[in-house]
Amino acid sequence: MKEQIHGGDVYRHRDVLDFSANMNPLGTPQSVIDAAAESLKEICNYPDIRYTKLAKGLAAYEQVPEEWLICGNGAAELIFMLALALKPKKALLLAPAFAEYEQALRTVDCEMVWHELREDSGFALEESILEKITPETELVMLCNPNNPTGLLTEPALMERILGRCRETGSFLAVDECFQDFVEERERYTMKGMLKKSGNLFLLKAFTKRYAMAGIRLGYGLCSNPEVIGKMQESVQPWSVSIPAQTAGTAALKEEAYVNRAREIVRTERAFLKEELRKLGFQVYDSRANYIFFRGPAGLVEHALKKHVLIRDCSNYRGLTEGYYRVAVKTHEENRKLLEALA
Amino acid sequence: MKEQIHGGDVYRHRDVLDFSANMNPLGTPQSVIDAAAESLKEICNYPDIRYTKLAKGLAAYEQVPEEWLICGNGAAELIFMLALALKPKKALLLAPAFAEYEQALRTVDCEMVWHELREDSGFALEESILEKITPETELVMLCNPNNPTGLLTEPALMERILGRCRETGSFLAVDECFQDFVEERERYTMKGMLKKSGNLFLLKAFTKRYAMAGIRLGYGLCSNPEVIGKMQESVQPWSVSIPAQTAGTAALKEEAYVNRAREIVRTERAFLKEELRKLGFQVYDSRANYIFFRGPAGLVEHALKKHVLIRDCSNYRGLTEGYYRVAVKTHEENRKLLEALA
Repeated sequence: MKEQIHGGDVYRHRDVLDFSANMNPLGTPQSVIDAAAESLKEICNYPDIRYTKLAKGLAAYEQVPEEWLICGNGAAELIFMLALALKPKKALLLAPAFAEYEQALRTVDCEMVWHELREDSGFALEESILEKITPETELVMLCNPNNPTGLLTEPALMERILGRCRETGSFLAVDECFQDFVEERERYTMKGMLKKSGNLFLLKAFTKRYAMAGIRLGYGLCSNPEVIGKMQESVQPWSVSIPAQTAGTAALKEEAYVNRAREIVRTERAFLKEELRKLGFQVYDSRANYIFFRGPAGLVEHALKKHVLIRDCSNYRGLTEGYYRVAVKTHEENRKLLEALA
Repeated sequence: MKEQIHGGDVYRHRDVLDFSANMNPLGTPQSVIDAAAESLKEICNYPDIRYTKLAKGLAAYEQVPEEWLICGNGAAELIFMLALALKPKKALLLAPAFAEYEQALRTVDCEMVWHELREDSGFALEESILEKITPETELVMLCNPNNPTGLLTEPALMERILGRCRETGSFLAVDECFQDFVEERERYTMKGMLKKSGNLFLLKAFTKRYAMAGIRLGYGLCSNPEVIGKMQESVQPWSVSIPAQTAGTAALKEEAYVNRAREIVRTERAFLKEELRKLGFQVYDSRANYIFFRGPAGLVEHALKKHVLIRDCSNYRGLTEGYYRVAVKTHEENRKLLEALA
C-alpha cells in the first residue's frame, strides 16, 4: 500500500490538531460547501468536460484569456499532465521541494538534475541556478514560495531564470500554489510574463486558498496552445468532478473571506516565527502560510502526545532529521501548537 | 478547447432527455447523495490516500483481497494509469470500442493494432482474434460487454484469449464496467481467473451501477502486486476525492436498489429492442443497459428536435454514419425515446 510521505494524514492520526497541511486558517467557506452539496443532485451526469462556468469565472478572476486555462483534479494532477505533455528527457529541480514533481517526471522516465538549496544560504534560491540551465535542460521546475521552506524568490531572479530558459530552449514551470498568502502577490506572480513566454507554465490551486483539498481542484496558466492541447490529451476528459467544478465557481466569489484569512496569516506568521525562535528553534523566513524550522529530533512524536500533528521534513530530498514545517492557523490554534512544541 | 466525442454532454444540449450516456435508470441513490453531502464538511482535509473505508467495503463486495484493489478518479483514470504502468510498445484493441483506450495508450506512444469487429458477423468478437495475439502484443485491451455494441463474449472464448495471452506473454485488460446489468453476471466476470493470472486486469466502475458519473469513482482488480504498485506510482496520491470515497462506501450498501434497476433494465431492454425493430432499425443483441442499432442518417438531429439526446456512433473507429446507441431507461422515458425516433 502507498506510503504517506506528505502532510495532512489525519486518517492515521485521529483527533489531532493538524499543522502538517497548509490551508486557509478559516477553513472551507460555507458557500463552497453549500454549492457543492447542491450540485450532488446532478452527479448522475458526467461532468462538463469543458468546465464552462468554472473557466469563465477563473478567466475573470485571473484576468487571462480562457484559452490559457487548464483545470485538473487538484494541482497535483496538472504536474502529471505537464510531465506527459512535455515528456522532458532531462529536468532541473530544487531540493528540497514538493515530492510530486519527481514522481510525475518518473512516469516519463525523465532524468532529474537536482539544484540543492544550501543550508548555509538559508535554503534560498540564488543565481547559481542559472549556470545549471543548459540546452539539455528541457524542463526547469520551480516553486515560489518554495515548499517546505516558504522562501520567496525575488521577481528579478525569476525573470533572469526565465530569460536563461529562453536562451537554452528550456520550458519553465513555476508552482505558485503558495502565493495566495504572500504579501504583495502581484509583484511575485509571473502571470505578466505569460503572454510573451510560450515556454512558461504557472500552477495554481484552490486547495490552500479556500481550504478545499478534499474536493480536488487545481489549474494552470499557459499561453502556448500546443502545450495546453497536449496536456488535455494526456488525461481523461472528465477529470474535474461536478462537485469540484461547482465548488470552484462558488469559491471565486469569496474575496472578502480570503482577505480576512490573509490578514490572519500575516499577523500569525509573525507571531509564530517569534515564538518558535523563543523556543530555541532555527526559524527560516517563510513568506507563505506555513513555517519551516529546525529543531531537535523527535519533535513530531513529542507534539503528537499533545494531539498536534506537525510535518516531519526529514523525507524531503536534501533534508535530514530535525527539519519541520507547521501551518499558520488561527491564534488559538497556534497557541496550542506552541504548547505542544514547548 | 476539447471536443465532445463522448455521450452525456448535457451541457451543450440543455433540457434534453439524455439517452446518450448509460446509467442506472433509477438515478443516484439518495443515500449516496446524502453521504457525499455529509462528507463535504471534511473537505478542508486531503483525501485518505489509502481510501481505507472504501477499500474495505469494496474488498467485501467483490470478495477479493484488498491488495488486489486499486481505485481511481473514475474508471477512465485507471485506463491511463494502466497504460503508464505497463508502457506497452504494441497493443491490440477492438474497433469499435471506447475511445479512451486509444487516448490513454497514445500518451505512452504505443503502437496500436486494431482487431476490426465485422458488420457481417454482427460486430461479435470471434476466435479470429486469437491469431492476432503474438509475442509482440504487449497488451490486449477488451471490453465485455463491448461498448457501443453491448455484445457479450462467452466465457469460453475469453478464457482462450487469456490462455493465448499467457503463451505470448501478453497482458490482458478487460473492461467489465458494463457487466453490472448483464444477466448471469457471475458467469461472465473473469474475477475467478485473477488469482492464477498475474497478466490479467479487470476494470470496474461505480458510474453505471449507481448513476454517479459526476463524482468520479472507478476501480480495478489485479492480483499482480507489481502492476498495482506501478499504477499507484503513475498517479498523484490524492486522486480519489473525499466525496467520491464517501459516496462509494455508501453506494456499496445499495444492493436492493441495484437489483431493482437490473429488473427494469431486463424488461425494458427487451421492450426497446422490439420497438426499435418495429421502427425498421437494425438492432444488435445488446446484453448491457444500452442498445446499439443502425438507422437512417440524421437521427440525432431528428431526436434533438423532440428534446431527446441519443449517441451518434459515427465517430467510433470502424463505424460510419447511421450507427447509434441509446441507454435503457425507465418505461416512461423509453416511450419518449421511441416517440422521438419515430
